[in-house]
Amino acid sequence: MRRTAFLFSVFCAAQVGHAAALALMPMPAKMDLAEGALSIDAGFGVAPGTNARLASGVKRFLTRVWRQTGIFPSPSGPSATLEIVCAPCTASPVLSEDESYTLNVTPSSATLKSATVAGALHGLETFLQLIQPGPEGFRVPAVHIVDQPRFAWRGLMLDCSRHFLPLAVVERNLDAMAAVKLNVFHWHLSDDQGFRAESKLYPKLQQAGSDGMFYTQDQMREVVAYAAARGIRVVPEFDIPGHTLSWLVAYPELAAGTGPFEIGRHFGVFDPVLDPTREWTYTFLDGFIGEMAALFPDPFFHVGGDEVNGKAWNQSNGVQAFAKARGLKDTLALQTYFNQRILKVLQKYGKNMVGWDEILGPDLPQGAVIQSWRGAESLAAAASKGYRGILSADYYLDHLRPAAYHYAVDPLAGPSAQLTPEQASHILGGEACMWAELVDAETVDSRVWPRTAAIAERFWSPRELTDVDSMYARMEAVSRQLEWTGVTHRSSYGEMLDRLAGAWPVESLRVLADASEARGLGTGRPASDTQTPLNRFVDAARPESETVRHIELLARKLAGSRTADQADLTTLRAVFNLWAVNDARFQALAEDNALLAEIKPLSKDLAEVGTMGLKILGYWESGKPAPADWVTAQAKEIARMQRPNAEVLLAATRPVRILLDELAKR
Amino acid sequence: MRRTAFLFSVFCAAQVGHAAALALMPMPAKMDLAEGALSIDAGFGVAPGTNARLASGVKRFLTRVWRQTGIFPSPSGPSATLEIVCAPCTASPVLSEDESYTLNVTPSSATLKSATVAGALHGLETFLQLIQPGPEGFRVPAVHIVDQPRFAWRGLMLDCSRHFLPLAVVERNLDAMAAVKLNVFHWHLSDDQGFRAESKLYPKLQQAGSDGMFYTQDQMREVVAYAAARGIRVVPEFDIPGHTLSWLVAYPELAAGTGPFEIGRHFGVFDPVLDPTREWTYTFLDGFIGEMAALFPDPFFHVGGDEVNGKAWNQSNGVQAFAKARGLKDTLALQTYFNQRILKVLQKYGKNMVGWDEILGPDLPQGAVIQSWRGAESLAAAASKGYRGILSADYYLDHLRPAAYHYAVDPLAGPSAQLTPEQASHILGGEACMWAELVDAETVDSRVWPRTAAIAERFWSPRELTDVDSMYARMEAVSRQLEWTGVTHRSSYGEMLDRLAGAWPVESLRVLADASEARGLGTGRPASDTQTPLNRFVDAARPESETVRHIELLARKLAGSRTADQADLTTLRAVFNLWAVNDARFQALAEDNALLAEIKPLSKDLAEVGTMGLKILGYWESGKPAPADWVTAQAKEIARMQRPNAEVLLAATRPVRILLDELAKR
Repeated sequence: MRRTAFLFSVFCAAQVGHAAALALMPMPAKMDLAEGALSIDAGFGVAPGTNARLASGVKRFLTRVWRQTGIFPSPSGPSATLEIVCAPCTASPVLSEDESYTLNVTPSSATLKSATVAGALHGLETFLQLIQPGPEGFRVPAVHIVDQPRFAWRGLMLDCSRHFLPLAVVERNLDAMAAVKLNVFHWHLSDDQGFRAESKLYPKLQQAGSDGMFYTQDQMREVVAYAAARGIRVVPEFDIPGHTLSWLVAYPELAAGTGPFEIGRHFGVFDPVLDPTREWTYTFLDGFIGEMAALFPDPFFHVGGDEVNGKAWNQSNGVQAFAKARGLKDTLALQTYFNQRILKVLQKYGKNMVGWDEILGPDLPQGAVIQSWRGAESLAAAASKGYRGILSADYYLDHLRPAAYHYAVDPLAGPSAQLTPEQASHILGGEACMWAELVDAETVDSRVWPRTAAIAERFWSPRELTDVDSMYARMEAVSRQLEWTGVTHRSSYGEMLDRLAGAWPVESLRVLADASEARGLGTGRPASDTQTPLNRFVDAARPESETVRHIELLARKLAGSRTADQADLTTLRAVFNLWAVNDARFQALAEDNALLAEIKPLSKDLAEVGTMGLKILGYWESGKPAPADWVTAQAKEIARMQRPNAEVLLAATRPVRILLDELAKR
Repeated sequence: MRRTAFLFSVFCAAQVGHAAALALMPMPAKMDLAEGALSIDAGFGVAPGTNARLASGVKRFLTRVWRQTGIFPSPSGPSATLEIVCAPCTASPVLSEDESYTLNVTPSSATLKSATVAGALHGLETFLQLIQPGPEGFRVPAVHIVDQPRFAWRGLMLDCSRHFLPLAVVERNLDAMAAVKLNVFHWHLSDDQGFRAESKLYPKLQQAGSDGMFYTQDQMREVVAYAAARGIRVVPEFDIPGHTLSWLVAYPELAAGTGPFEIGRHFGVFDPVLDPTREWTYTFLDGFIGEMAALFPDPFFHVGGDEVNGKAWNQSNGVQAFAKARGLKDTLALQTYFNQRILKVLQKYGKNMVGWDEILGPDLPQGAVIQSWRGAESLAAAASKGYRGILSADYYLDHLRPAAYHYAVDPLAGPSAQLTPEQASHILGGEACMWAELVDAETVDSRVWPRTAAIAERFWSPRELTDVDSMYARMEAVSRQLEWTGVTHRSSYGEMLDRLAGAWPVESLRVLADASEARGLGTGRPASDTQTPLNRFVDAARPESETVRHIELLARKLAGSRTADQADLTTLRAVFNLWAVNDARFQALAEDNALLAEIKPLSKDLAEVGTMGLKILGYWESGKPAPADWVTAQAKEIARMQRPNAEVLLAATRPVRILLDELAKR
């Protein structure tokens, strides 16, 4: 198997030889390769220029070089350098600032130029991705890159309410975001299941609404500074008037209707919401938003606004009387009234309103930003009315869809393709969303990464970049580099499998997990509640299997060629054999193990798939046709095995299916 | 393959059914199993008793329960509890305190009793090791344990000079030490290659002698407190009069002989040492030791004393004149004089002297403690003269010997077996030593763990416990549990392999690494220098391969029985096949990769071993004898392949050798 089997056609055919050196994600806007490479050895160093704000970024960069290569800088100082030329700006990141950079690497030195710190940081991340092992050691290929983002708003939302994410988890995800040039951290800080921000004005919010798990004001300031140092804006979200059970536990007088209220333990849309008719509601929110506005310097402030089912308002005589008196004929009208009031509060504190697409009412002022989650139609509708918008529909990470699914979604495609250039310019970008019904501190990284890197490329790189094989090859390489930022999407996998195996050898469990893919919310896994342990096989399994993708590529190659490569056949046979014989060891491991009992059928299916693969290869090599009824029976079995089992898909069925389909044709 | 293939005869044959629940290390002194088990679910909690010092230990315990099980404590509080009964003592850990505990677990509750915090902490660690997955979820078997250590001094030495280990690395190793009931952290803080402790009295020590890598006094205080909270004493070592290049860079006037001096970049015994004739040397050391004595409350203070080759003293006219005038006839006599002076300084600050066995001179006072590194003979000699001693010879982790090698070494065996009981009582225990020529912050954990767990068992458990198969089965289980303490001996493996593979699929490299074992200092790997990157295959490879051990067990089982288990045969064939076909993919990966080039021959050998294994199984199953000359040729090939290759052993040769030997007999 040649390397090019896995990392092909990265950019254009002529550059295939350089493919390994170009495992970049997001891909730069423009790149020209030259001959030779710059060595990364103990003599490598950085001339950071005069920009003081960049100093911490350069320090982090050098630590990453060390972690990526294992090479420690020489105590006697650098002999070859990366020179950074950056304007001496000191500002925090702001929307639509110039994030461009040029990076020029020759065999003897490198130069990075940018107008802003953000641009320089992006260039440093590109440089890190360019470092790869070569014939004489680690190196960066000679290259000239001129790069800038396609969209100005490239975000990741983390829901820290449904399951709390400790500060360290948030911070390591900020490092990983910076590595793929994302620039907005949308921090979902309150929801029915927990109020996660410390308020000094209304301390009962965190005291009664958080189970003791919240961020102090110092910690929130730290996150803002941490993000800013990495070129990332922080947009806090306090979701109102719905999704507010955790507020109402603390301040039941905010509710339309009476309590008692309890912190949400289950998930979904709850009826209790804020009361939009009482002045005290607005007094309270004015105080609270003022307090939070001082902590979060970004001029955008997210007020949620989603999933108000109207029941509490309909059931309240007071609210109904209020609505009638003002001619507010339904829930939407009441929510629009509420939003108008909140908008004034936000304006008082110098903030632009951001909200989910439900806030798009008839009288919404032009400054608001619409975040589309229910579909791209609302984004196009908002843009056509002159509202700014960001796309999140089909970027929901908690669905655990393949990276290719999200990669194919373009903020300017679909209904937005019909917009005029002026209207389209209102579409600022998009955000990947990590809702936390089914993730916690241990599993969140493996649900965010590496798939978010593919979404980040969609937001940054030229629209024409759509080759899925290239995307996967580069995403896999970048996934490993992301480890060096501190996220645990790869290392936690082994630890969680070890836990499931207890004291016993884990190999057979790992073979099964490598061949499996976890299903997500809305795609085969029901939500449970906040107290259900996330320690099952489905929690350890990855959303996409790298192992199976490699085997799929081999199967496709074999299916597409008349003369089979012997090495490919040998590899396929070894893997199918491993699958075929794995079940005996797995069943012994699963004996008396409550957590593994549910995947015993999955393991049996893997053995069946392996055996089937071996038989198909047998027909293949013998040159004899397979009996039609045998092929039909196998196809039926594969279809059965492709249904989720304990909320997990047997990904191993895919390459075998490819070979079976080809066998049927021959 | 039944589970009992891997975890057999843990304690006594009648308890085999409970083997999984008994993956304890160190094994308790006395244990009786009962029927049933205590469930560990969201309702589990701790009644911590009244000992205030234990509170932080209980908090850590609950975090570990969560990490080990993925189960979060219920917000509504516990329904079943572990009750802790511990005397309300508040003291820091001291040598020879009562570390015993009793742990009683029933299906409905558990009780832990101890006289000291140290005992309670040990009992909590035992409880954590007892938690295993069971048929209804995680559980602890009903058991009654009465436990206490065999030796009072159970240590781990970390050399933080030759390669600096950041604070976080030290602290996570303290957590892992506590998990296996070690109670002494011997902190090697200075050596030729770096002075790692901040002195406020003599700040040039760290300014000139550390390359900027040292522990501040606050950090050292933090480590002492961190260790004490985990029942661990901290014994600092400042190695004098040799191994002092880093001191002399800062204060050349301390040297016998003239400089200039430079921080050691290479390893070995350097000639420059302290001048024992000048009063200022003792004035300096009085000040320094006084300063350090205040930071480290333990009454033991290590002054090294090893490897003084005498050259600098012999070459100095001043030293020779001084020696002649006092009748000090050789290097040993001069060092004894030096030690006598240092002893007085230590006594002034209330410290007992600890030193390497070279300090055992004729006039050494009885309070001194001898740490034997050159062999067990010096330990026995010291004990017979009434000196207290600890054994480190054959506990050198940097040699990367198998755990079984260290496990077989007993502080009271060999020459010490001839001691009277009174003399033997002077042997306090032992210490595993992690010298840092060839480890850094990234690799140290994988060299210390899990092998140190086996040494810890030797120091704690009954002498009669010597079954190596049981030890390995339990060490493997405990190795996984150690992950939850924060050490990275397992997770860093994948990351380092990923780095070596660069952008390419890592599977073939992982198969090769799983079949390989790294050689250490003195066992096949030469020392390099402090600037050489530790990023090679040998650095990623483990000292012992779990995968190969499993295959070896299968091979032994097959060799020992007349009728082969079909499942075992199938597993062996699948693994040998994997090895046999791995090379093609590996060679493609290693193409143009400087770091992988050196192990291309190793990969070819793995393919040969795999192919050989398949052929042996072929003969086995056919029932036909293998031709004698073929067997001879294979044995020769295995012998060739068992020699280190790029400082790595091909462990995969071992199971194949077992099968070949048996085939030859049949």
